[in-house]
Amino acid sequence: MIDLLELDQMLPFVLQRDNVACYEDGVVLIGDRRKYPFSKEFVRCEDVESVAQAIENMVTQGGGPWIAAVFAMVMAAKKVESKPHQEALDYLLKAKERLIKTRPTNTAMARRLGDTLSVVKKAQDEGISIEKALLVWIKKLRDKAYESYAIRSRLGADLIEDGDGILTMCFAETAFILAMAMAKKDGKNIHVYTPETRPYLQGARLTAPSLHELEIPVQIITDNMPAFVMSQGKIQKYFTAADLITMDGHVVNKIGTFQNAIAAHYHHIPYFVFMWGPDFESPDRESVVIEYRDPAEIRSCRGTPTTIDDIEAYYPAFDITPPHLVAGVITRHGILSPYDLRPHFEKELSKE
Amino acid sequence: MIDLLELDQMLPFVLQRDNVACYEDGVVLIGDRRKYPFSKEFVRCEDVESVAQAIENMVTQGGGPWIAAVFAMVMAAKKVESKPHQEALDYLLKAKERLIKTRPTNTAMARRLGDTLSVVKKAQDEGISIEKALLVWIKKLRDKAYESYAIRSRLGADLIEDGDGILTMCFAETAFILAMAMAKKDGKNIHVYTPETRPYLQGARLTAPSLHELEIPVQIITDNMPAFVMSQGKIQKYFTAADLITMDGHVVNKIGTFQNAIAAHYHHIPYFVFMWGPDFESPDRESVVIEYRDPAEIRSCRGTPTTIDDIEAYYPAFDITPPHLVAGVITRHGILSPYDLRPHFEKELSKE
Repeated sequence: MIDLLELDQMLPFVLQRDNVACYEDGVVLIGDRRKYPFSKEFVRCEDVESVAQAIENMVTQGGGPWIAAVFAMVMAAKKVESKPHQEALDYLLKAKERLIKTRPTNTAMARRLGDTLSVVKKAQDEGISIEKALLVWIKKLRDKAYESYAIRSRLGADLIEDGDGILTMCFAETAFILAMAMAKKDGKNIHVYTPETRPYLQGARLTAPSLHELEIPVQIITDNMPAFVMSQGKIQKYFTAADLITMDGHVVNKIGTFQNAIAAHYHHIPYFVFMWGPDFESPDRESVVIEYRDPAEIRSCRGTPTTIDDIEAYYPAFDITPPHLVAGVITRHGILSPYDLRPHFEKELSKE
Repeated sequence: MIDLLELDQMLPFVLQRDNVACYEDGVVLIGDRRKYPFSKEFVRCEDVESVAQAIENMVTQGGGPWIAAVFAMVMAAKKVESKPHQEALDYLLKAKERLIKTRPTNTAMARRLGDTLSVVKKAQDEGISIEKALLVWIKKLRDKAYESYAIRSRLGADLIEDGDGILTMCFAETAFILAMAMAKKDGKNIHVYTPETRPYLQGARLTAPSLHELEIPVQIITDNMPAFVMSQGKIQKYFTAADLITMDGHVVNKIGTFQNAIAAHYHHIPYFVFMWGPDFESPDRESVVIEYRDPAEIRSCRGTPTTIDDIEAYYPAFDITPPHLVAGVITRHGILSPYDLRPHFEKELSKE
């Protein structure tokens, strides 16, 4: 049995449950990852629109947006608690649509936001508080997510050998950070290299400070260094999270993940991906739509220009790593071959 | 016959001869590459120590330091023009030692600085101005260097096909930029992708503005993008310069060069290196000493912190690409296999 409180205490500041986002008496507080690690601040949102804008403005990312969004639904529910059922539902439907619009490609968030309406209808039918019903449902959802993290992190930690050097990319969040914390607790000496992950610097701003807080040896490197660090024999495993894995095992993740996977393959270093499972809406590479972001972000670094405005830039935000470069996908069903994801998750879907 | 004046006019601002460094009536002016492309400024040096400090402070880099250094010797020579021969020589020997100390691993600069003393001795023996003798010698040396650039750039330009997408790394200076200019002049449509080259951003600050000035289509990307851009079929050739090539064909160049070479190999894209030739003092990979720079440089970008000071960083400034990833070394003797450098340059050495 997993002690979820103990698990929360093993996590660094940014990943502790209430620091991702929390709901307090009609207000949503979102941990501001744009300011971290320079300061530890929260964005206070008093309505759905503020939460939507906070998500759009990158106050939170990764596993944060869906949490902030479902809490925004609680806030909305509290506001219409005393209204007639249909009026309340219409209001919440609009809130849901606004929140989905913040991250059109985040299908997991959209599904969960959709589920909030069923929770509300059921509470209305049973004559209980819709605010409370949503809070209970969210707690269950989060507990389930953290149980899944714990299972996957355990599998990841067991892959690590004493003395391993580990490469990651971007901010692989709870599953990865917790795996490192578990490996440390198991008495394994590890050393993590985290590329800064330009242009948004998630590696420098989130991954490195998180590991540093847990007293796990970590060094940042620039994004052009992983292959050379590998050639020096300093890296034995490469771990990332994924934004999406296709049914045929292609890993979609922050730009640079693919380049490191090629370099790892060249150096005979296994690449493992932490992920809940594949996306049933994404059969293959061709079905993936890569997000292109504002090229101006490439011409600056935390607000400081890196070149003159006249220079053009190109900014694909994600890349695609083919399954032959992936040694294993770490899921709650085990460390799976990227070529064998479907059967494990078809079972899971049929159970739900 | 190469028209060197015409060649100079084909180059962008930073690479035009007098903008790299020039000598004017007892003063050395060095083009300030730290300020470019944000402003076009020169550092004015009135003594050898100022030139030495300018080189140490990265006012110029690549092909710049040796030019600034030999001009510093002219400045020193002018100062001791009327002194007894031995006193003048002693003074110049000290100047030489100070200048060599600015870049201990730049053996080419050290060799040229050594040669200045022979030029001075010869001028003293012949009773002619040592300042003028040095200036004549430098002109010849530069002319020879530019002739070599022109030959290598021609070979590089001829490798390019109409419609090619080209990847480079860092600032491959005159040979590369001139090759792109020649390809354009030949009527070939090209598109260059230049990684920004963290932490010092030579790609964003020098390569991209240089190509933009020549109206060659160029886009900057972050250092984690080359492999993905290759996977999109946008790149047909990869070109860099080299800081050093070992006798057995290992290419030492700015960190990231190796990682791109692995990605190019994976995508069946040929990698070509512009270089005068191999280093006879460096037989193999083991003989190369990689420079490690201040990790603090990894924690910031043009002065803006990218993370908190507590975070450790690792900064190898160069990497080593093995010969099997190199399709050709572009030298004045042709496009050579990295496995066949010695015979071509043994001949050259014996001629000198």
